[in-house]
Amino acid sequence: MTSRKGTAAILGAGVIGAGWAARFALMGWDVRIFDPAAAAPQIVEDAFARARASLPALYDVALPDMGTVSFHDTIAGAVSGAVWIQESAPERLDLKQSLYQQVQEHAALTAILASSTSGFTPSELQAGATRPEQIIVAHPFNPVYLLPLAELVGSDKTDPALLDRAADMLTGIGMSPLKVRGEIPAHIADRFLEAVWREALWLIKDGVATTAEIDDAIRMGFGLRWAQMGLFETYRIAGGNGGMAHFLHQFGPALQWPWTKLMDVPDLDDALVDMIASQSDAQSGARSIAQLEAARDGNLVAIMRGLKARGAGAGAVLSDHEATIAPPAPNPDLPTPPRTMFRQVPGTWVDYNGHMNESHYLTAFSEATDRILLWAGMDAACVDQGHSVFTVETHIRHIDEVNIGDTISVTTRVLQGGGKKLHLWHELRVGERLCATGEQLLLHVDLASRRSAAPRADVGAWFTRAQAAHAALPDPDGLGRHVGQRT
Amino acid sequence: MTSRKGTAAILGAGVIGAGWAARFALMGWDVRIFDPAAAAPQIVEDAFARARASLPALYDVALPDMGTVSFHDTIAGAVSGAVWIQESAPERLDLKQSLYQQVQEHAALTAILASSTSGFTPSELQAGATRPEQIIVAHPFNPVYLLPLAELVGSDKTDPALLDRAADMLTGIGMSPLKVRGEIPAHIADRFLEAVWREALWLIKDGVATTAEIDDAIRMGFGLRWAQMGLFETYRIAGGNGGMAHFLHQFGPALQWPWTKLMDVPDLDDALVDMIASQSDAQSGARSIAQLEAARDGNLVAIMRGLKARGAGAGAVLSDHEATIAPPAPNPDLPTPPRTMFRQVPGTWVDYNGHMNESHYLTAFSEATDRILLWAGMDAACVDQGHSVFTVETHIRHIDEVNIGDTISVTTRVLQGGGKKLHLWHELRVGERLCATGEQLLLHVDLASRRSAAPRADVGAWFTRAQAAHAALPDPDGLGRHVGQRT
Repeated sequence: MTSRKGTAAILGAGVIGAGWAARFALMGWDVRIFDPAAAAPQIVEDAFARARASLPALYDVALPDMGTVSFHDTIAGAVSGAVWIQESAPERLDLKQSLYQQVQEHAALTAILASSTSGFTPSELQAGATRPEQIIVAHPFNPVYLLPLAELVGSDKTDPALLDRAADMLTGIGMSPLKVRGEIPAHIADRFLEAVWREALWLIKDGVATTAEIDDAIRMGFGLRWAQMGLFETYRIAGGNGGMAHFLHQFGPALQWPWTKLMDVPDLDDALVDMIASQSDAQSGARSIAQLEAARDGNLVAIMRGLKARGAGAGAVLSDHEATIAPPAPNPDLPTPPRTMFRQVPGTWVDYNGHMNESHYLTAFSEATDRILLWAGMDAACVDQGHSVFTVETHIRHIDEVNIGDTISVTTRVLQGGGKKLHLWHELRVGERLCATGEQLLLHVDLASRRSAAPRADVGAWFTRAQAAHAALPDPDGLGRHVGQRT
Repeated sequence: MTSRKGTAAILGAGVIGAGWAARFALMGWDVRIFDPAAAAPQIVEDAFARARASLPALYDVALPDMGTVSFHDTIAGAVSGAVWIQESAPERLDLKQSLYQQVQEHAALTAILASSTSGFTPSELQAGATRPEQIIVAHPFNPVYLLPLAELVGSDKTDPALLDRAADMLTGIGMSPLKVRGEIPAHIADRFLEAVWREALWLIKDGVATTAEIDDAIRMGFGLRWAQMGLFETYRIAGGNGGMAHFLHQFGPALQWPWTKLMDVPDLDDALVDMIASQSDAQSGARSIAQLEAARDGNLVAIMRGLKARGAGAGAVLSDHEATIAPPAPNPDLPTPPRTMFRQVPGTWVDYNGHMNESHYLTAFSEATDRILLWAGMDAACVDQGHSVFTVETHIRHIDEVNIGDTISVTTRVLQGGGKKLHLWHELRVGERLCATGEQLLLHVDLASRRSAAPRADVGAWFTRAQAAHAALPDPDGLGRHVGQRT
């Protein structure tokens, strides 16, 4: 069975390849894996478990149904029908080049053959290939299923249209492709990582700082800045109203200072390896790699959701992608109470009982109310004109538990609307199972006076129609209840 | 008037000095500022406005009352009574040294004299000073009122006990002091920033990437990793179960590759300055520095609050600090309904109406319920034993608006308790103004069967006492209301 999204072949399923597989599959692609290593299926299983626990939690809409995932004994089997072929083999040029020979015997001519390499340029990868123009670099960052960056690089043999198509496909699985303007060793990001890494080795070798101290120097300071703005926007701010040129004139002279040992490379001998490994054990050894991965993924979800709520950095990538997964629902047919929410419950909504915390039932009903207001015409422009609603009263019945990862839906009925008062009835379900009801009374307000006011004419008319359409339905069970009322 | 927290003198009130001033003052310290520059008062006012909009939003408790802030024409006036003196003058050694001469004529012998310098070592700063042992480096990161890192450095003249005392004081204002083991130019973090900066200049000079592309290469990838783990913990994960030594053996050889141009420093001539400045204008010019600062601060708050909810990285610093600001309230005297919440409303709670979103009224009541359960004995250990409560029903009346930054308090009355049912009445106020009531019915449950069960004996007994103590109070206004009921 082929899903509507397409088929990706994953050649080499270590941590990086398995991360690609998980991202493609969770975004609805069928995934065909080739990796002769005995450990590969377990690595893939672990990556999928981590991805399923974290990637959906970044989104406020349900992701597409997962694609099918299959393992193949031959390259021919893996690349069959694939429109994207991702190679994540070990960093040996001869190995990659001979792999491409086999791939190109069997792959579709229009398929994109992308390498995860950080070390080789497209020209090196393409040398000796049957169709060099088919081969590009798409360099991701671990964990591939969460971090949006992929560096896209072609050579002078590469058709720019192919890079555009590659960028579109990566955007479609939620990534932020960065087209690199030229072929250079290590592309862009890894050059920075290399520079920092060398400096870090010197600091440790000289006993100036331990691994834990270096990590704190990063994550308590500039690491927080770099998760949302990068180097230049941060420095632009530091330059103040004088702007970037002012900053450069102030900061530039420091470049002449003999601040760094980077002119030389420390010898990574056994003594330095032992020193780093034992410091790292002291820093992180109490947690297994699996525990560290889970902590990392949870932290990244929290950071990226935080940025998403603000439309900033990697969060803006999420919002844009979300709109392509679930475009705003069209104005619904009345008289059925419309579905005003459909989403998976993110891990950040959990409480100590291990289920969705009570407060997020109101988060869900609040978002459902916003959705129905949008249909009625109360969009951002309408709010800018001073029309809004304030909630006066809410009654929630918690009928059954909702678990993290459950897909919830809310339907909303208009009990009264058209005038100043808006009386809504929400029902929250997991599948067919009713888990909560929410009864709300809202007032249309004038945002200038903060007092109740008639809705804008078109908004009022929509709610009048909705009330009439829903009027024939029987009263919902639980309507008008007060807290503690006997059933 | 001197507050209980102490007095800090701020010498030099540019962006860094003003940031220190805001952090100290918002954490309850009195702040005395010396800066002869005409622009200083405006820079301080702007920094305080940004800090007040963001720093309290990191915390889930109310911050101490702000200290008094005063400007002084003389160094003598500024350092009078100060236990912490922070110098953030321009990076000229002679200027700093002559400043210290004047400071030491007037400062208390026990005061800590700390420099914000990134470029000078403590030994250089101390040279020629009357009391060199009083002078250390406390190097912060912009924005100082949000980022926790401060690098603390002494020389061989520095008493380790003084560095300990300095670290305690910085911890007390919510920072994460990092004691640097040795004096080296640029301490630790700035060495990394320098290395990245030089590499970035080459990439731009060679036309490989623009400022915006470099920023994306950072904030869409490793910047997200570095906001929560640093370099080494991230690489430890990449090494998988083979551990850090395995990673080093795999990654180490790459160091020999000619990947970087760092052996040489690009000439920051006018052409390169112009190129960077115009790229930066294209990237960020649509927003003013003030807008960029507000965006940055809001993003940092979202990231740090996300990490705080997980107890990770800079978020753990916040949680630890919060516990020192507002230790868990002791078991309250009954029969007055106890105060179950007291906090400022963070910016992340806002909605498009510019006030606290309806869903966070339930967040507040939910936290209030957790607090009263804790007093009754239902702590984490009790939950681990399988005792908990599930909310069955909630009724909220939104009586008045709550704004971002408002300090809210909740009082909670026990209407019924001791058996399986727990009936609570919450009132949420800003000052004396009643803004919402929340009526909740909860059931004690057995977490194994997920069914209602009697509370643990001590918990039940506490609620029996609370119900009896509150029984004599008149029924609260609005009790037992249903949605839309006429008053």
